[in-house]
Amino acid sequence: MRRFKFITVFIFFVTLALPSSAETTVSAEVGFIFNTFLFLICGFLVMFMAAGFAMLESGMVTSKSVSVICAKNIGLYSIAGVMFWLVGYNLAYEIPEGGFIGKFVSWSDESKLETGYADGSDWYFQMVFCATTVSIVSGTLAERIKLWPFFLFAALLTGAIYPIAMGWQWGGGWLAVIGFSDFAGSTLVHSTGGAAALAGAILLGPRTGRFKKSGEPTPIKPFAASSIPLVTIGVFILWLGWFGFNGGSQLAMGTFDDAVAISKIFINTNLSACGGVIAAALITRLMSGRTDVIQMLNGAIGGLVAITAEPLMPSPFASILIGAVGGLIVVFGTKLLFKFQIDDVVGAIPAHLFAGIWGTLAVPITNSTANFGTQFIGVLSINIFVFIISFVIWAIMKNTIGIRLSKEAELKGTDVSETGVIAYAIRD
Amino acid sequence: MRRFKFITVFIFFVTLALPSSAETTVSAEVGFIFNTFLFLICGFLVMFMAAGFAMLESGMVTSKSVSVICAKNIGLYSIAGVMFWLVGYNLAYEIPEGGFIGKFVSWSDESKLETGYADGSDWYFQMVFCATTVSIVSGTLAERIKLWPFFLFAALLTGAIYPIAMGWQWGGGWLAVIGFSDFAGSTLVHSTGGAAALAGAILLGPRTGRFKKSGEPTPIKPFAASSIPLVTIGVFILWLGWFGFNGGSQLAMGTFDDAVAISKIFINTNLSACGGVIAAALITRLMSGRTDVIQMLNGAIGGLVAITAEPLMPSPFASILIGAVGGLIVVFGTKLLFKFQIDDVVGAIPAHLFAGIWGTLAVPITNSTANFGTQFIGVLSINIFVFIISFVIWAIMKNTIGIRLSKEAELKGTDVSETGVIAYAIRD
Amino acid sequence: MRRFKFITVFIFFVTLALPSSAETTVSAEVGFIFNTFLFLICGFLVMFMAAGFAMLESGMVTSKSVSVICAKNIGLYSIAGVMFWLVGYNLAYEIPEGGFIGKFVSWSDESKLETGYADGSDWYFQMVFCATTVSIVSGTLAERIKLWPFFLFAALLTGAIYPIAMGWQWGGGWLAVIGFSDFAGSTLVHSTGGAAALAGAILLGPRTGRFKKSGEPTPIKPFAASSIPLVTIGVFILWLGWFGFNGGSQLAMGTFDDAVAISKIFINTNLSACGGVIAAALITRLMSGRTDVIQMLNGAIGGLVAITAEPLMPSPFASILIGAVGGLIVVFGTKLLFKFQIDDVVGAIPAHLFAGIWGTLAVPITNSTANFGTQFIGVLSINIFVFIISFVIWAIMKNTIGIRLSKEAELKGTDVSETGVIAYAIRD
Repeated sequence: MRRFKFITVFIFFVTLALPSSAETTVSAEVGFIFNTFLFLICGFLVMFMAAGFAMLESGMVTSKSVSVICAKNIGLYSIAGVMFWLVGYNLAYEIPEGGFIGKFVSWSDESKLETGYADGSDWYFQMVFCATTVSIVSGTLAERIKLWPFFLFAALLTGAIYPIAMGWQWGGGWLAVIGFSDFAGSTLVHSTGGAAALAGAILLGPRTGRFKKSGEPTPIKPFAASSIPLVTIGVFILWLGWFGFNGGSQLAMGTFDDAVAISKIFINTNLSACGGVIAAALITRLMSGRTDVIQMLNGAIGGLVAITAEPLMPSPFASILIGAVGGLIVVFGTKLLFKFQIDDVVGAIPAHLFAGIWGTLAVPITNSTANFGTQFIGVLSINIFVFIISFVIWAIMKNTIGIRLSKEAELKGTDVSETGVIAYAIRD
Repeated sequence: MRRFKFITVFIFFVTLALPSSAETTVSAEVGFIFNTFLFLICGFLVMFMAAGFAMLESGMVTSKSVSVICAKNIGLYSIAGVMFWLVGYNLAYEIPEGGFIGKFVSWSDESKLETGYADGSDWYFQMVFCATTVSIVSGTLAERIKLWPFFLFAALLTGAIYPIAMGWQWGGGWLAVIGFSDFAGSTLVHSTGGAAALAGAILLGPRTGRFKKSGEPTPIKPFAASSIPLVTIGVFILWLGWFGFNGGSQLAMGTFDDAVAISKIFINTNLSACGGVIAAALITRLMSGRTDVIQMLNGAIGGLVAITAEPLMPSPFASILIGAVGGLIVVFGTKLLFKFQIDDVVGAIPAHLFAGIWGTLAVPITNSTANFGTQFIGVLSINIFVFIISFVIWAIMKNTIGIRLSKEAELKGTDVSETGVIAYAIRD
Repeated sequence: MRRFKFITVFIFFVTLALPSSAETTVSAEVGFIFNTFLFLICGFLVMFMAAGFAMLESGMVTSKSVSVICAKNIGLYSIAGVMFWLVGYNLAYEIPEGGFIGKFVSWSDESKLETGYADGSDWYFQMVFCATTVSIVSGTLAERIKLWPFFLFAALLTGAIYPIAMGWQWGGGWLAVIGFSDFAGSTLVHSTGGAAALAGAILLGPRTGRFKKSGEPTPIKPFAASSIPLVTIGVFILWLGWFGFNGGSQLAMGTFDDAVAISKIFINTNLSACGGVIAAALITRLMSGRTDVIQMLNGAIGGLVAITAEPLMPSPFASILIGAVGGLIVVFGTKLLFKFQIDDVVGAIPAHLFAGIWGTLAVPITNSTANFGTQFIGVLSINIFVFIISFVIWAIMKNTIGIRLSKEAELKGTDVSETGVIAYAIRD
């Protein structure tokens, strides 16, 4: 992510100094093209994560709510693009150094060679991050939320909440100044999405009949996932997209050092996901005798989220461990939510919020420039800010336009009440 | 797209002139690699659009015709590759300046540094465009066309019709000379596909029972889309592919200016699709009380097609508007086809033909080098040429080998009669 | 693939020699970045093939075994990543020249400018190849194998069997020294996977009820593929990934020659797949009156595997023919397995083992530096080594922990017995 603008400028001057400099022999223009290419390629990978979330969620919800999930995902990505252009980007980046909030003005392109990359490629890369945040929210609240209040929340999250929170760090705001470290956004992106989802899930309440009075979830039958292969392709798409997510957050590709760093990031990102899958497979097999494929798939997400705060410094082995803990957090976090009768339809809160907290707090283990206290402040401030403001917005909407479908509409299925389109029409 | 060869040559000499030139400091060989890389990367994105169409169409048809749609899509992409190599490419590009038709000879590789990119990378990029054209036709005619006559038409469209029409502009033919402007092919690719599909749909007639005598479509039940998530992943894949489609049409990545331009194209392409989705969501919600997810998804395509004629010059805001109009055209175009009892199973004619016309005519709004009169001539000439020649071919086939399945085969489903493979075999 | 290290070093010195050299004007650092970029981009394309296999297999198995297939595919990719880091890479590449086996030590990053690419990018690219090998095994053994014995085999195949076999050639071992030629791994990757699958299939036996006593497969009903669209998107993803598979195996992108070569490889790879699809469509239509969509899809794989041994030297026309033969091999190879009552659920043995042998033996037709005798030795040695060692491992497992589910579990479906998760829960 574009962290401090002066870092980029510094890189540029190093670049300019060639070929006398020992640092690099890449000309400023070639470096500019490489960096722009990096943002565009990594950006389209992250863009495709929108499809990954759409498939993961389509597969996880019951077959009565799949069309609406599709509408939500194509809609939220569209809203994110418009809102991030309209105000989001400059709220994040036109922030005074060490400050709290940027300017309410639309983004515009002012590409200069000195910046080191095309402005548009940076906007595109940041925009797809912004869209990811709201993709995370979508699944948790499935099967009982009204469509248009969700879209309204998506507009607020992508236009204001996420940009403000993210600007504290990547815009050079107060968190950056005190030394918080979150390479590609375990907290800034994933916990932000997860905290917003948690606030919504609490106010919305669980799906009708989801929990027995004892607190146990009811037998899976009426709440069975509609399609495991769709969940699987969703997770593979997310995994693919994560190479762009973490790799592109190196922000530059125009030097030997950057090329080596991005390669390391690819490896660590991959191994952390591997760790998450294997840990989830082993623990569910040992605990229940069955190898829970859904937890394996969510374990991959947990591993990926965990490594996102620091995908560069860990060794391969450390990455596997960081991811494995992320995978375990997903498994036990799911049980924790059951205990509190919070109905997270797709398991996004354990995978994005809980594993994001873990990943961010784990940064100092492998990165000596980070320290635990500052990480703790960052995690706390971002999560509390996002949770409270989201809670307030959901509460206002709940008490005005309403956010929950009627019980009748919910039982018929959201596909009937909201889109009028059956998701799977299979005849023999 | 490779427009005039002399443009490329010009770029090359600018490139050669470095480092004394103020234009660029990128060496000819580095520029060559960047440009080749651009074609290959954008090319594989466009190639993947074949999968997007396959999924969109698989999801849109009824569950009795899904295997055949899969066979059509894997088959047409294969036929396109062979035909474009055999004659298509040189029909388009070995055309005399200002002329009408190139040479009936196979393409061969003659890569030279002076060309500015590897010949093979250009061929690959053009080939995937060619395949797109016939992908558009496939869905419209689903559920009642015979498989092999469709393949024959695919061979003619990709081997001759599309290359001839496209050569008028991108080969430096008569449309290029009079100043027609169609950056990445709203008309040349998308309307071409749509016009060929329209001709086929008229001659083929609607699916049995699709329309009441009053002209209204019958209740959706027997014609319900088989899988909305597959439509959704199809649209996301197409959206992803469109970054390659429009971005790669800048044709070069080896200078500061190109890198900035491609970044702008990515943004405008994205925002136009956003506009299409949001417009379709709003209008269907306002008109019917339901948010029509299928129209949202097709609205994305409408927005993408609309911006394709000029993805570089519009501002972000103009792009959103261009796309929004594209989305509305999809919604109302669908109703228009109903009125004429034309059965377009997947909505490709509104999304590709109608939105393509809109996008092409809208170019002069943001690009002052284009003028409305010439755009009108281009739209008219391409669409009439493609429609008439397609109509003739479909008519000849109809009266010889036959293009429509027997009523009995149609009612059993094309999967039984054509491939003998059931698409969804789901047992409890 | 990284063939001989000294080739890379040679390229580097050529690169260093600029700009006085006529060979290239690309600086060492820019070349380093290009090469690294190539490995990362081609690597993520090949990584995504894991999703392609997962979808192909999910679609091909019956609906009672889909969740387990998903678990296997996400699990095997994770295991491959860990094992290839732990021992696989250095078993392959820390091999004495002309030798048989490398060192049992973990891979570590030692990137130097002189190597010509970031070590990590190379590891990543090789790792995804390794994962492909075991993806091939997964589908063949579906619906009756126990999950964890499969995972154990996956660990051995990716940690030892594949790396040892592959090191004979790409690590500079004895096959490389005698002049074996296998550009991107028709034999080293695809036949290896196919031979390991064949050994397993023989020991495991066919699914209960799959074959009549006469040897004919039983009517398709109880063994119908669960979803043809999933098979289709799987094949398109594999086709997409193959551009990375073959294109990245050029190993360098930093010169004019490399850029031209990679472009040729993209074209030949594509046309060979086209040939496979068209041949399978024609032959099934002519033989049975039905156009078998499954054979068309597998025909694409057959064509892709066939061209993998030599995607650079053939002309476009030769590539089409090589692929067409690959497609025919898939069709007739499937019948051959029926004859021997070997139950290959997804057709991986014909597509990967048989077509891989064909492709490798066909290299001398278009590449004059290869000779048939050496190709024969390579094919034989790799396939026999992998088959025997796999057979021994499967046999040991069969007689200790057991590899086959109980008949009861098999009839209920593996999803019930192994993961406890129904794959498709579709309610009206």
